[in-house]
Amino acid sequence: MTRRTARDAPRAGLDVKTTRADPQPADFTDVRATNLAVVLRHLRANGPSSRASIAASTGLNKATVSSLTGALIEQRLLRETGLSGNRIGRPGTALALDGSAYAAIGLQVAADHLTALAVDFAGDQLLLWHRQFDGGPGSGTPDGPAIGSAIGPGRAISAVAALAQRAATRVRRQGRQVLGLTVAVPGLVTDGGTVRLSPSLGWSDVDLRGLLSGSLRQPDLDVTVANHAGLAAVAELRHGGHPAHDLTYVSGAAGIEAGIVVGGRLLRGSRGFTGQIGRFGLGPAGSPTLADLAGIEQLVRQALPGFDPAALADLAPAVDQVAALARSGDTGVLTALRDTGCHLGQGLALLANLVNPEVIVLGDHYAALAEWILPAAEAELARNTLAPAAGGARLTASTLGLHAAALGGAVSHLDRIDTGALPAAP
Amino acid sequence: MTRRTARDAPRAGLDVKTTRADPQPADFTDVRATNLAVVLRHLRANGPSSRASIAASTGLNKATVSSLTGALIEQRLLRETGLSGNRIGRPGTALALDGSAYAAIGLQVAADHLTALAVDFAGDQLLLWHRQFDGGPGSGTPDGPAIGSAIGPGRAISAVAALAQRAATRVRRQGRQVLGLTVAVPGLVTDGGTVRLSPSLGWSDVDLRGLLSGSLRQPDLDVTVANHAGLAAVAELRHGGHPAHDLTYVSGAAGIEAGIVVGGRLLRGSRGFTGQIGRFGLGPAGSPTLADLAGIEQLVRQALPGFDPAALADLAPAVDQVAALARSGDTGVLTALRDTGCHLGQGLALLANLVNPEVIVLGDHYAALAEWILPAAEAELARNTLAPAAGGARLTASTLGLHAAALGGAVSHLDRIDTGALPAAP
Repeated sequence: MTRRTARDAPRAGLDVKTTRADPQPADFTDVRATNLAVVLRHLRANGPSSRASIAASTGLNKATVSSLTGALIEQRLLRETGLSGNRIGRPGTALALDGSAYAAIGLQVAADHLTALAVDFAGDQLLLWHRQFDGGPGSGTPDGPAIGSAIGPGRAISAVAALAQRAATRVRRQGRQVLGLTVAVPGLVTDGGTVRLSPSLGWSDVDLRGLLSGSLRQPDLDVTVANHAGLAAVAELRHGGHPAHDLTYVSGAAGIEAGIVVGGRLLRGSRGFTGQIGRFGLGPAGSPTLADLAGIEQLVRQALPGFDPAALADLAPAVDQVAALARSGDTGVLTALRDTGCHLGQGLALLANLVNPEVIVLGDHYAALAEWILPAAEAELARNTLAPAAGGARLTASTLGLHAAALGGAVSHLDRIDTGALPAAP
Repeated sequence: MTRRTARDAPRAGLDVKTTRADPQPADFTDVRATNLAVVLRHLRANGPSSRASIAASTGLNKATVSSLTGALIEQRLLRETGLSGNRIGRPGTALALDGSAYAAIGLQVAADHLTALAVDFAGDQLLLWHRQFDGGPGSGTPDGPAIGSAIGPGRAISAVAALAQRAATRVRRQGRQVLGLTVAVPGLVTDGGTVRLSPSLGWSDVDLRGLLSGSLRQPDLDVTVANHAGLAAVAELRHGGHPAHDLTYVSGAAGIEAGIVVGGRLLRGSRGFTGQIGRFGLGPAGSPTLADLAGIEQLVRQALPGFDPAALADLAPAVDQVAALARSGDTGVLTALRDTGCHLGQGLALLANLVNPEVIVLGDHYAALAEWILPAAEAELARNTLAPAAGGARLTASTLGLHAAALGGAVSHLDRIDTGALPAAP
């Protein structure tokens, strides 16, 4: 039989196109991949388990479990770890996910920071690096969109490449094979890794995957580029503690974007250009959009009238100041937060009416301000959704912090293996 | 091996939940179902083919194709039909889909009409019946939503049951087993077939599936209830001539709803309450929604100022009159159509920004007026979508007429079998 590898298999979590209705002929290889996936996911969800316990819980027979786990141990994805606690029949050797052989890297590019994060195959975090970064669009001109960033896409890519290089070198020195590097970028990203348009970075038609692959001194490193909010949604699905397969993540960084997970998979649409809720608005040209009404920059301008606009290049200190003033009961700031919540709730109602999520997660800077934004947003969401009780959608704040997209980029490589597409030999 | 039947299998096209990321243990039965699906879809797409030609085109080996087609012939889903035209090797007997043993029924409930449609397994239409029907919400009160329809849900359901009964009796007398009856309703429909809320029918919490099953003198008839626009999208996917797996159908009947197909499957969300684009709007309570700005009733009121509102109970004659006046160059009517197109395009841009469809199909009455609505709608769609060229979305008019949802209801049962879930024995 031919073993499927991560390289030729569909990418879990990242490509709803793999669920196309047109079936492909199936054979024993597909059955085996599916059953490898069942075993891996069982161990990821339940922790160390004996072979007997895996068989009892999954419905696979013991001989099949022995064969599957044997292959996974050989590939260093599982390891034996003493005696099993949960005894079914006689005590068996427990199996656990093995973090020692593989790592995956996520790297997040925002207008004001770069973040690199690596996890091992067991999901343990190996590194988390944060760099200040002036990658915003600069002032642009009043007549047109700003093209090129404050430091230019070229220098930005050098900074991204340097950070990726350091992260890859670090985990390789630990003896781990790098499963891949996924870069999270706000805006429209093509399947081929070109940033088609990123208003918050001021980039258009930047072949980030190609430029980055060319800059790295690790030509065998598999580079993927994907939308920030989509990757953050993948991270919420796995690590956010929401038991939901229909989940939407809303990024509250420089722009507003949504990562929409449907039936456990990221919604990609025909070209991957989904989730642009910041553009919501109805009316003639120039009518305000959701980003104008409920964006974090707009909130900071309203809440902190004397704030230096140049300081918006790094939103975190401004958001901290807004939170401190809200905590002290500043009525102007509380009004600004309530206004933001109202508008955000109206925008989320459009989304809830259209895709009916079970959970909407407010991410990035919204999460830090959720205490004040959520009540108004919840009320407007319910009022503007046709289905009673917002169609069942719960609104909640992310607990993953400002690096959810980097985490999503890293774990997307683990998701891929968890479909039963085992990694290629190094 | 246990043969899977249509009754216990996931419903193709109608339930994206079947693509959840959590895999189930797989065995030989799944491989066989997948390969049955491959054969059935090959024949549906390519017409009569020899066993050798099926093997060559699908990649299945000849022995497998013989075994699969034998089972399908035994179940009367395929029949042998003389010699094959497309010779690969020596001439073989051609196989074709067999329409003689099975039929499926779709029934569409709108505020102003009922439509019943039946197809056989080969996809040939067996009957198409249209009934005028005053099922609208009546006048209601200014203080609250209208509850109950002009003739009441009870009488409406009797009318639906009578039509379903006649259709089922007709196709059974032709010797065909009825695979199922699917009823299309505008508004929110639960998985269990309860109409949670239908503003255009004035229904809330009507257990249509239960009431209908109880009224039919055919207790073994499998009844499904689903959203109108979703079923119309399923019909467009199969019969609309759009080679796209990411397709959105926009209903232009009494309300505006979208049926969103993603990767070849209907987007259901967590409770099935998707596609409510008529509710789009941003602003305080009472702000106009997309339905207020671009709905067919609003268009008729603007285009035909002296039109008797009571006549809106049947929109078709009013729409015909609007089209006739537009054809004669009536500037007021042309302006109303352009305004409708502008607003519709803005609403569709919200949808395109969020789900990035490849094709947006304007259905129902919009299709009859597309000549005048499309240009303004296309311009606004492009102007308001962040991705260049509307993210690749083409805007087009449905060619399936006013019974697309009934057709979708009927063919959804064929889709189900085309996943390899063969019908249960009668």
